Amino acid sequence: MSHPKTVQDYIRTIPDFPHAGILFRDVTTLFQDARGFRMAVDQLLSPYVGARIDMVAGLEARGFILGGAVAHQLSKGFVPIRKKGKLPAKTIEQDYALEYGRATVEIHDDAVEPGQKVLIVDDLLATGGTAEAGIRLIERLGAEVVGCAFVIDLPDLGGRARLEAMGVPVHAICSYEGL
Amino acid sequence: MSHPKTVQDYIRTIPDFPHAGILFRDVTTLFQDARGFRMAVDQLLSPYVGARIDMVAGLEARGFILGGAVAHQLSKGFVPIRKKGKLPAKTIEQDYALEYGRATVEIHDDAVEPGQKVLIVDDLLATGGTAEAGIRLIERLGAEVVGCAFVIDLPDLGGRARLEAMGVPVHAICSYEGL
Repeated sequence: MSHPKTVQDYIRTIPDFPHAGILFRDVTTLFQDARGFRMAVDQLLSPYVGARIDMVAGLEARGFILGGAVAHQLSKGFVPIRKKGKLPAKTIEQDYALEYGRATVEIHDDAVEPGQKVLIVDDLLATGGTAEAGIRLIERLGAEVVGCAFVIDLPDLGGRARLEAMGVPVHAICSYEGL
Repeated sequence: MSHPKTVQDYIRTIPDFPHAGILFRDVTTLFQDARGFRMAVDQLLSPYVGARIDMVAGLEARGFILGGAVAHQLSKGFVPIRKKGKLPAKTIEQDYALEYGRATVEIHDDAVEPGQKVLIVDDLLATGGTAEAGIRLIERLGAEVVGCAFVIDLPDLGGRARLEAMGVPVHAICSYEGL
């Protein structure tokens, strides 16, 4: 007897993308399946049933797909956290370390209000650098990050520990050991 | 007596972004409002009630936010149409003219199946170059674009006529005359 596919069953692994030696976990095959996409949204939100969430924030760009669906499911608004230079109005910015060099993300300075409770979503948690920068942006605007929710965790890269050390609970639907 | 805000009332106009002389229509203020975001999704889909839609495709990057929500509302899958180099698996690509130079978008070659009916969504229709390229990608995979739905149309830039000349119906929630 075959079992129904899990969220992880819909994820495709692409070797050597974006460069040699990387196993890229591709969620497009999850998102393009109607059942898979809905399961992902449901399971992403399962820890937050009954919790107060005022706003959903998504990290560019795959976090926008998921974040749009999650915000819609919750009947809440959606706020984008974008790479520098993409947002048209007044922003605050936060830079963070990459493997080589640094990057900067931004949020509109009126995107969230002080005291609001914000859920951050993205497809994948690796080192947690972008998510950490996103948390800092939201906290600098006086709002509270009630959680970071991911489809995939790569636990060997330490992102979960890094975000939890900031006091932010982390949820991931599935994980891949190794890289 | 005040009237309830319309979708257009939630859109913010930013002068001189991304460069001097442009009035940028900013949908982030629409998306971050719970009522506004839900109204936008509902009104985006209003022409398609009862129509067969098998898949939602979104244009990078703001079309991902909207497309994720629209796919979720329809209980369908979501397919991203991305700038060149972002998709990890095998793609087909389509280039198109910009005001200065050219750009290329891609789709995974297994993103849609022949015969599927696809709705393309994005925040704004200007010249229609990106949407036209998106339509061509989906049609090259043997699927049918049943419509292109936008929050905003800038009719003076001719995008609607361009897409309709391809036989694709265009829907926009609101429009701004002039630039």
